[in-house]
Parts: sequence; C-alpha cells; structure tokens
Amino acid sequence: MLKIAILGAGRIGQVHAANVARHKDAQLVMVADPFIENANALTALWGGRAVQDPLEAIHDPAVDAVVIGTPTDTHVELMLAAANAGKAVLCEKPVDLDIHKALAAEKALGEKASRVMLGFNRRFDPGFNEIHQRIAKGDIGDLHQVVITSRDPGLAPLNYLKHSGGIFRDMVIHDFDLARWILGEEPVEVFATGSRLFEPSLEALGDYDTVMVQLRTASGKQCQINCSRQAVYGYDQRLEAFGSGGMMINDNHRETTVRHFGAQHTEVRGPLLDFFMQRYTDAYRLEIDAFIQAISKGTALPVTIHDGCQALRLADAAQLSADTQAVVKLN
Amino acid sequence: MLKIAILGAGRIGQVHAANVARHKDAQLVMVADPFIENANALTALWGGRAVQDPLEAIHDPAVDAVVIGTPTDTHVELMLAAANAGKAVLCEKPVDLDIHKALAAEKALGEKASRVMLGFNRRFDPGFNEIHQRIAKGDIGDLHQVVITSRDPGLAPLNYLKHSGGIFRDMVIHDFDLARWILGEEPVEVFATGSRLFEPSLEALGDYDTVMVQLRTASGKQCQINCSRQAVYGYDQRLEAFGSGGMMINDNHRETTVRHFGAQHTEVRGPLLDFFMQRYTDAYRLEIDAFIQAISKGTALPVTIHDGCQALRLADAAQLSADTQAVVKLN
Amino acid sequence: MLKIAILGAGRIGQVHAANVARHKDAQLVMVADPFIENANALTALWGGRAVQDPLEAIHDPAVDAVVIGTPTDTHVELMLAAANAGKAVLCEKPVDLDIHKALAAEKALGEKASRVMLGFNRRFDPGFNEIHQRIAKGDIGDLHQVVITSRDPGLAPLNYLKHSGGIFRDMVIHDFDLARWILGEEPVEVFATGSRLFEPSLEALGDYDTVMVQLRTASGKQCQINCSRQAVYGYDQRLEAFGSGGMMINDNHRETTVRHFGAQHTEVRGPLLDFFMQRYTDAYRLEIDAFIQAISKGTALPVTIHDGCQALRLADAAQLSADTQAVVKLN
Amino acid sequence: MLKIAILGAGRIGQVHAANVARHKDAQLVMVADPFIENANALTALWGGRAVQDPLEAIHDPAVDAVVIGTPTDTHVELMLAAANAGKAVLCEKPVDLDIHKALAAEKALGEKASRVMLGFNRRFDPGFNEIHQRIAKGDIGDLHQVVITSRDPGLAPLNYLKHSGGIFRDMVIHDFDLARWILGEEPVEVFATGSRLFEPSLEALGDYDTVMVQLRTASGKQCQINCSRQAVYGYDQRLEAFGSGGMMINDNHRETTVRHFGAQHTEVRGPLLDFFMQRYTDAYRLEIDAFIQAISKGTALPVTIHDGCQALRLADAAQLSADTQAVVKLN
Repeated sequence: MLKIAILGAGRIGQVHAANVARHKDAQLVMVADPFIENANALTALWGGRAVQDPLEAIHDPAVDAVVIGTPTDTHVELMLAAANAGKAVLCEKPVDLDIHKALAAEKALGEKASRVMLGFNRRFDPGFNEIHQRIAKGDIGDLHQVVITSRDPGLAPLNYLKHSGGIFRDMVIHDFDLARWILGEEPVEVFATGSRLFEPSLEALGDYDTVMVQLRTASGKQCQINCSRQAVYGYDQRLEAFGSGGMMINDNHRETTVRHFGAQHTEVRGPLLDFFMQRYTDAYRLEIDAFIQAISKGTALPVTIHDGCQALRLADAAQLSADTQAVVKLN
Repeated sequence: MLKIAILGAGRIGQVHAANVARHKDAQLVMVADPFIENANALTALWGGRAVQDPLEAIHDPAVDAVVIGTPTDTHVELMLAAANAGKAVLCEKPVDLDIHKALAAEKALGEKASRVMLGFNRRFDPGFNEIHQRIAKGDIGDLHQVVITSRDPGLAPLNYLKHSGGIFRDMVIHDFDLARWILGEEPVEVFATGSRLFEPSLEALGDYDTVMVQLRTASGKQCQINCSRQAVYGYDQRLEAFGSGGMMINDNHRETTVRHFGAQHTEVRGPLLDFFMQRYTDAYRLEIDAFIQAISKGTALPVTIHDGCQALRLADAAQLSADTQAVVKLN
Repeated sequence: MLKIAILGAGRIGQVHAANVARHKDAQLVMVADPFIENANALTALWGGRAVQDPLEAIHDPAVDAVVIGTPTDTHVELMLAAANAGKAVLCEKPVDLDIHKALAAEKALGEKASRVMLGFNRRFDPGFNEIHQRIAKGDIGDLHQVVITSRDPGLAPLNYLKHSGGIFRDMVIHDFDLARWILGEEPVEVFATGSRLFEPSLEALGDYDTVMVQLRTASGKQCQINCSRQAVYGYDQRLEAFGSGGMMINDNHRETTVRHFGAQHTEVRGPLLDFFMQRYTDAYRLEIDAFIQAISKGTALPVTIHDGCQALRLADAAQLSADTQAVVKLN
Repeated sequence: MLKIAILGAGRIGQVHAANVARHKDAQLVMVADPFIENANALTALWGGRAVQDPLEAIHDPAVDAVVIGTPTDTHVELMLAAANAGKAVLCEKPVDLDIHKALAAEKALGEKASRVMLGFNRRFDPGFNEIHQRIAKGDIGDLHQVVITSRDPGLAPLNYLKHSGGIFRDMVIHDFDLARWILGEEPVEVFATGSRLFEPSLEALGDYDTVMVQLRTASGKQCQINCSRQAVYGYDQRLEAFGSGGMMINDNHRETTVRHFGAQHTEVRGPLLDFFMQRYTDAYRLEIDAFIQAISKGTALPVTIHDGCQALRLADAAQLSADTQAVVKLN
C-alpha cells in the first residue's frame, strides 16, 4: 500500500484524490490545501486527514508519496522539499514557467529525479498510448510525419490567461510533450505562427488565441501542431502518425455511439467528451496507476522532470518564433 | 458491336439508353415508345432511330438485342416475341405480377431462356457484389444470417401503388432476389408482418406501408428483411452478412464525404444518394455491361427468368403470410 | 447511506460489489456466499462482512437492501424472503426459468413488488438509454420498426448451457426486454426461427445456436432480433429504431478510437469491448445507481418483476414458435 | 455545341477526351499528338479527327476551344498561340516551371486571359467544392485554420521526377492552389520543411520526398500542408477547415462502403480510390463542364492563369524556404 498525500485540493487535486482512493494498491492518507475547507471536502469524500500546510504533509512519516496539484509557481519548491524528504513525487505540468528555474530544479534534484514523475497525462490516454506502442512494434514502419490537433472548447478566463505563461507554455506544452514522445527524437527546429483571430485583448498579454507549429528532428522527421483556444464543437484532441509502412489516427471521444438520421441531416453524432477531465478520465486514472506501480516496484518512471524541461524549451522556442516570425534552432 | 434497341422511353429506358450509348462495345440503334416524342427525345440525345411500335424494333434485322423497360403487363409478351425473333433480351423486373403467367413464360422460353436476362440491378452494385464474392471466397466462413434494410425515401403516388402488385411484389422483390443470391440457397419458409403505420388508405388496396420478413433455408440459414415505403432521411439500402468467420456490412452512399462539426452537433454528414437512379447509377451501368459481355461472348447470363420467378414466389408467399399472419412453407 | 448486502460472490456479484463500494450514497455491509472464501475475497477488496448463508444477510437488521446474484433457481425464494423481511431487492434476471413460478412470485410479492427491481442492465446503457429518451422526445417521430443485433463472442460451456433454459430464456431475454422497453407496447405476435449451424450437440438439449425473432405489437409496430451464440469478431450489441421522423442507431464500443491504415487494408479499427462485463461496465454502474436512488428517495423502480415476467413470456413464446415453426399469439 | 480539340493524347488527354465526347453541349472534333497513333487511338474511341501538329488544331476554323494536355514546357507557347487564334483554352497545370516565363505569359495574354482557364482540377471535387461553398455561406463562421493532407500512393519514376520541377512545383502546387482558394486570401509568409526519408537519390536533384508547409495570410489565417511522395495505404487527399463557428473535413474516397469484421480485426474498410484519375474522376468531369459552360455563356472562368502564377510563386517560396531553412515573406 503506497500512502499518498495530495497537495492542492483544486480541480486537478480532486481528480487525483478519487483515483488514489479507488486504487487497490494505494491509500489516500492526507490532503493539504491552504483553504482547509477544500481539503476537508475531499477527505470527507475519500478519507484521509486534511491539513493546511503542504510541508506538514511532506514531512509526515506516514506519507510515502505526494501528488503536487498546487499553483505552478509552487511546483519547484514543493517538488524539491518532497524529494529531499525522501518522498516519491508526481508533479502536475509545467515544472515552472521559467526554463532557468526548471533546469535549476532538475539539477538540484540530481539522482533524486528518478523518483519524481511529471504529470503529462496524455501519454496515458489509451489511444495515444496504443499509437506509441504500435510505432515501436513497427506497425507503420519508419515514422515520417506527426500531425497533432489540439483545440480547447472555449477560452479560459482572461484572469487565468494573464498568469498562464501564454498559449505555448500553458496549452501547447502538452502537444510538445506528445510530439517528443511520439517522434522518439528531439526537435532541432521550431517554427510557430501566432494569430489573434477572436480575442484581440490577448495582444496586451503578448499572447495568441490561434497557433500553428512546425517541428523538425535531426533525422528529418516532421511534426505539425494546430491549436486554438476555442472550438465551438468541443474539445478536439487528435493525433496522426504517418510512416513508411502506414498511418494511424487517434480520434475524439463521445458520450455514446448513437447516430441520428433525420429529414434534415442523414447522420448526426452527439457531443465530444467535454474538456480535459471528461476526455482524459482514463488517462488520469492510468497515470496515477503508472506512478503507483513504478514507485512500488522501484522501476523507472515513465515521465521525468527532464521531459518537463524539454517541453518547456520547445514552448519557449515557439513563443520566440511566433513573436519574431522566424525559425528557431535548438541544439 | 452489339446493336441494341430500348423498348420504353420512360425513366428506366432513359437510364439504359445512356449506358448503352456510352458503352464501347454496344450501339444504340433504336428506341421504341408509343409516345413517339419520348422516343425522339432519347434518340436526339444518344442517337438511333425512334419508332412507336416495340414489335417493329424486335423484328428489325439491325437489332441484336432488346432492353425491355415497358409497363410490367407487357413484359412477358415482348420477352417472348423478342426471344422468338432470335434477339437477346434484358427485361426489367418483375417478369409479371402473376406467378402463373411468369412460370408459363419461363416454360415457353425453353432453351431460349439462356439469352433472356432479368434486370435485378442490385446484384451489380459494387458493394453487394463485393459481399457476394467475398462470401464465396470464405471471408466470413459459413454464412449464418443475412439482414437486409430496404427503405424508400418516400411513398410512390397512390395511382402507381394501385397497379404495383403491392409492396412485396413491387419493392421487396428486389430484396427477395438479393436474399436468394446472397444466401446461395432457396428459402423454404417465409413469415411476413405487414402494417399500415402512416398510409391508412393502403387498406383498400390490401397493401402495407411497413413490412418485415423472416426467411429460412433448408439448411437453417436465416434472413431478415425490414422495409418501409417512407424513410425521411433518404433511400436506405443496406445489407449485413454474418457467418462463422465474421461479418460484412454494405452501407449507404453519400454525395460527398464531408463531415461538419458545429456548436449544436459535433458531427454531421450530408444526404444519402437519392432514390434508385442515383444510388444505383453504377449498378445500372455494370448490369448492362454484364449483359453486353455475356451476349457478345456467349457466356451464361448472370440473372435469369428463373430468378425472376423464384423472387415472385417469395413475394407471393410473403403477401399470403402477412395477410393470414401465418408461416408459409415453400417446397 | 443505503446499506447493501450482496448475495452471491460470483462474476456478477463482483461487479455489483465494486459498484456499491464506490457509490457515495451506499455502503457494502455484507457479502453472502456458500463458498465463504469467495465472500471473503470480495470483502477483503471492498469491505463489509462475509457470511455463508444468504438468509443471514437478509435478516440482518444492518442491511437495508440486497442484490441477488445467486443461481437462477434461488432467485424467487431469496427475493420473497428479502421482500418479506422488509428489504429492498435488486435481483438479477431472469426471475426464474419457469413462467408459472415467476408469475406466482409476482403475485406473492403483491404491493412489495414496488421495492423489487429486476436487473435488466441494458436499459442503463447510455446509448440504449439515449435512444429511449429521444424516442420519447419525438426525435424520430412515431416509432415503426426496431432491429436488435445480439451476438455473443463465443459459446458458453455446454455444462452452463444445459441449465441455461435455452438461448431464448438465457440470452434473448435481454433483447425481449429491450424490445418491450423501446417499443413502448407489448408484442402480441412472436415468430422465431432456430437453427443449429455450428454446435450440433445442442439438439440433445432442444436448444439452438443461431436464432431470429420477429415481433408485432397490437398497433402494428414491428421488431426483428437476430442472435448468435458465437461472433468471432466480438460481442456485437446494436439497436436501430426507425420511425416516421427518422432513425437512430446505437453502435458497438471499442477500447480506443485508433484507426490503422496499412498497405493491405486502408482502414482497420481495433477490437470491440469484450463480453458483457466490459461492454456494459457503465450500464452496471448506472443500474445500481438507479436502484440506490429510487430506494433512497422512495420513487418508482425503473424495472420491475412484471417486466421480468413479460420478457420470460416472450422467451417461452419464441421457444414454442421455433420448435413448432409456427406463429405464436399472445393476448 | 462547343467544338473542342484535345492537344496531347497522353494520360490526361484521354481523360479530357472522354469527358468532352460524353458532354451534351460539346463535340470532340480533333485530337493532336506528335505520335499520331496515340491521337488515332483516341479518335477511334470517341470520334473526331487525328492530327500530329497541335498548331494545325489551333488554327482550324472548326475548332472553338482547345484543351492543352501536352508536356509542361509547351504550355505557354500553345496557350498563347491558341488565345491569339481566338480560341478558348483549358490548360493543364502548371503554366510553366519558370515563374518569369509564367508571368510573361500572363502579361502577353492581356485581356485574352479571360478566355484561358487553368486546370486545377481539385477545385471541382464535389467535397472540396462543398467546403468552399459552405465557408462562403458561413457554416463554420470566420475561417481560422486550414489543414491539407496530400500524399501520393507511390513515388513517380525518377526519370519523371528529374523534369518535374521538384515536389513543391509538381505536387504541392495543387495544395497551394487549394489553400489560396479555401483561405480566400493570399498567403504572405511561407515556411517549408523538406526531408529525404526514403529516397536518398533525390538529394542529387535538390528535391525532397516528404515535406511540410506552413502558411499565413495578412489577416492571420493559418494553413498547414503535409505531403509525402509515398503513402503505402493509397492516395491520401484530405482537407480540414476550422473556424469560429465550427469545422469541416473532406475525407478520402473508397471503391465500396463495405466493412469487414473478422476474428483478427473487428472492422476493416477497403482500399482508397487509387491515384488521381480514379480519385478525381468526378472533378475532371465537372472541370470540363465548368469550362464548357463558362465559354458557352460568356461568364467568368473559375480558374485563371493568375491563379496558376500565384500557386507557382508559393511553390518557389516553399522551395527556397526548405532549402534555406528560413521563413520566406511574400509581398
């Protein structure tokens, strides 16, 4: 039984708490949140003790591992504290919005990085995962091109966007991680186009609502990412991998398979699964399972702080590319 | 070059005339229709000579073959006259609405039946044909069940329905032929249910607007047909074949492959191909091609008057079954 | 908190135990199974007390409700005992294999039947449920035809089949319930065709491996069910509802949405969700939720013992029809 | 009746000859090819007179219009000769491989350009056309992003590739035209990535086998094109248009709609329509129809030499971008 504390009782902490509580090899022992009523609400539902101070949870000897779901600017501090206290860590993305701070954290962790996992949940989506595994098995031969579609159902509140780090570091960072993972090779060239097509106020933030990114690896593999802050038809998350031996596509998910044929339209499907907590329900469950199993068995973690730093470097490069309308090379 | 005369310049005659005229191994030499202006219109478009009397075409030495697209009650007479005049014949379904007359025609033809083809166009649809061929190749193992969906986009005019012979002889007869052809075995048991769910005036005709039929062959193969005179979403023509080694489904056809994702519906496809002349465009072209090739090469015709009689027997049995709400056995 | 005992720790009892244990408004207090190690295994995982005798659970004052997942021939006895002890009951289908015993149970329950729910899980499948609701809303106008596909991935062990009551009472009974529920009207006419196409040994049991059924209601609504004990491509569960204003189809479910395009096949999808516990995971969870909510709030149960008896009557009629190759009328 | 001469009896000339011959408002009067036996073969099939010299056809008073399907390096010369002889012209793409020669031709044509149409056949594909029309109707609101997939089934012979002008001018030029047409605005920024992932010998030609292109218009609309010379699963031609009010996708085409469900794969579709003459059969037919109708009625031609020059400019820019790994700006 891995004894786990959840740091942060917000939206993502709630997802992790439920998955920990239902896991047969884990136990939810503590939830920490400065707003103690949030922590209380979670422990009432799933058990464990509620505390205000995340450091109390980190230093409690009854805790084996912590899941960090606190605001981004606290990730590095809590990650280091927990690792230094000998705890295993699952930390939500991003490591930090500042690449220097993120790289410093990676350096500071040293060998302890082997027990710190980063929460790029999409790697655990059964569809993306199937594609990753089947590429490895040779089902599409040598990989040549990857096309990623990543569109949110609606613009986040402007107050959130102000502190988000911008569309590349906040949203496309997931796709940069997917791209690295599927490509199996580091991109060495980034070109990004950013537009403000429906939310002009983003100009004041130096941010964009609609972006496209093109990546190339050293061996010539290619990747395109298209991204929008607002798709009226729902949360659009697709991936296409094309190679010398074929192609694979991961499509969107729906609530049911029902199709309607009416006098006006001869085939209509229902809504896509809404936003990330519905769409990636399975992915979050499988992510925590992968964390629990790797820590319990002492095997390698599937996503590391290094992955977090590399995705952030791509996001920084994309921001620079879009701002300067020029190609950015990475070494 | 097979020299062909079209008898009947109506809707179906027009389809055949265009396909004959465009065929590289055939020539449209004559069109016969009592309404000479209809015949003229067709020959103006596709060449050939227009005449009023079908018998003039049948006995013209310049004619090798005739396509009979005249009213049903003239089929037998014209078919016999043409066969006796040494012409090859492609006759639209049905042979006749009266099984006794149809069987008498089969008998009267004798060996000449080998040059009389019946126009069950659906056998030439590339999808149905692919399923037929792949069953023969063993792609679904031993065939166990067939499910046929056959729904017209809208009720034919009541004046047409009065002389149609009823839904089983007019419409489901196509599905009875498909069933026999796909099953590869004669049905020995017919059970049909007929309802008047939207057109009560059919009661006066002893006809139904909505029917279901269940068939069984001697070896126990099973078939279900569901049929409606009115599907508001378009012409619905599907077939499913299920066997010991798998299943195959032939779906409907659309004008384009475009899918629309909007705020209200996250995936909408466009209209089905409308009614039989659009949906079965390829089938009609391939049917006449099969006729021309078989006659030119002296090989066996793919659909015979015997097939026409057998489908009519099933239609008669289904009508009796629906009227008496009892199973009908065929020997 | 509804305190629930699970009677029977077999395959279906395990499904219900997990769903009860995870439900926020219920508590798993007891598991009863003559093989105490089975009961122990379940309580070890999900909590509660293990006992051997189901009557001990039924009469324990700490128990508010029981879920009966024991062998079929004990359903009636345990259902009556529990109802008489004042417990709410969720009983797996069928009520019994003998319609007389089932009807006697319905009569014996009297008013207590309002607290006895029958486990026709498919009504809680989100797809079937969406169709049921949308028919009620008029999305397809007046309902005319229903087509149900119901094929198991593989033959159950012959030892199981011997005591199953036959394909109609064991397997198609689910489809009879679906048909009644979707049609919204009782069938008055049953015609069934039964064949032994791959398992000749079923002849000794008077059973069939492949069946088709055709139903008609008093108002002329029609339904076809096609059913096989063995579909090599997986668990095939579909429903099509056709009406004056359109059609709806509920398709099968898959593990992922991944499509593969290779040199041999240009589009391949992955396996269907395997058998009933995977395919109907959501349905079982929503079924127990509906039970817990109805009992907690005192509202009407969505499936009753009367539904169980009516489905069994249709199964009996279908068996008789297939055996005699004749139509069976129900009053 | 528009009297048409086909210049060039090769692969594309054969397509046009058949479509002209079958068109009710046109007549195929001449086919010109230096290899007279090729011209003879076509006139034997579809009528008209065979000649060797294209200029003979151009200057024949019986000819109203010419279709130029000769080698690329003769396009400009024949186009100018025909226009100057007062003929209407439908010229295959590209205008020329040299942008200077193409622009000079545009200038030399002057007002006669209004009777010269360029053969970008994909604009006449019913699916692409539906998307173009529905964007204009507002079905997806303001257009934000376009994603084009364009993959050939197999590498053309190296001998062809040597004289092709490279992947951007030979193949992606179709997609540049599609992009301009769908975007409804000129791209002002081009970034292209070129790789040699399976045909290293292309290095000697300065050509690529796999490319990705990213475009931006002045108003910030974005477009990604992904392109390969070899997709083992067939001719892959898709387009996705995303806007403020929704998305539309045009999918690939297949020979039939048959789906197969077997023990290994639970759903398999058949091959894509092979290469451009099968995939774009309808588009070629509708292209010549649009030409015939516009010339007959004196209305504006849907694709002009200006379109041909603009697509070539994008191809040149993409080549430069890929060669220099830098963004290219267009004014």
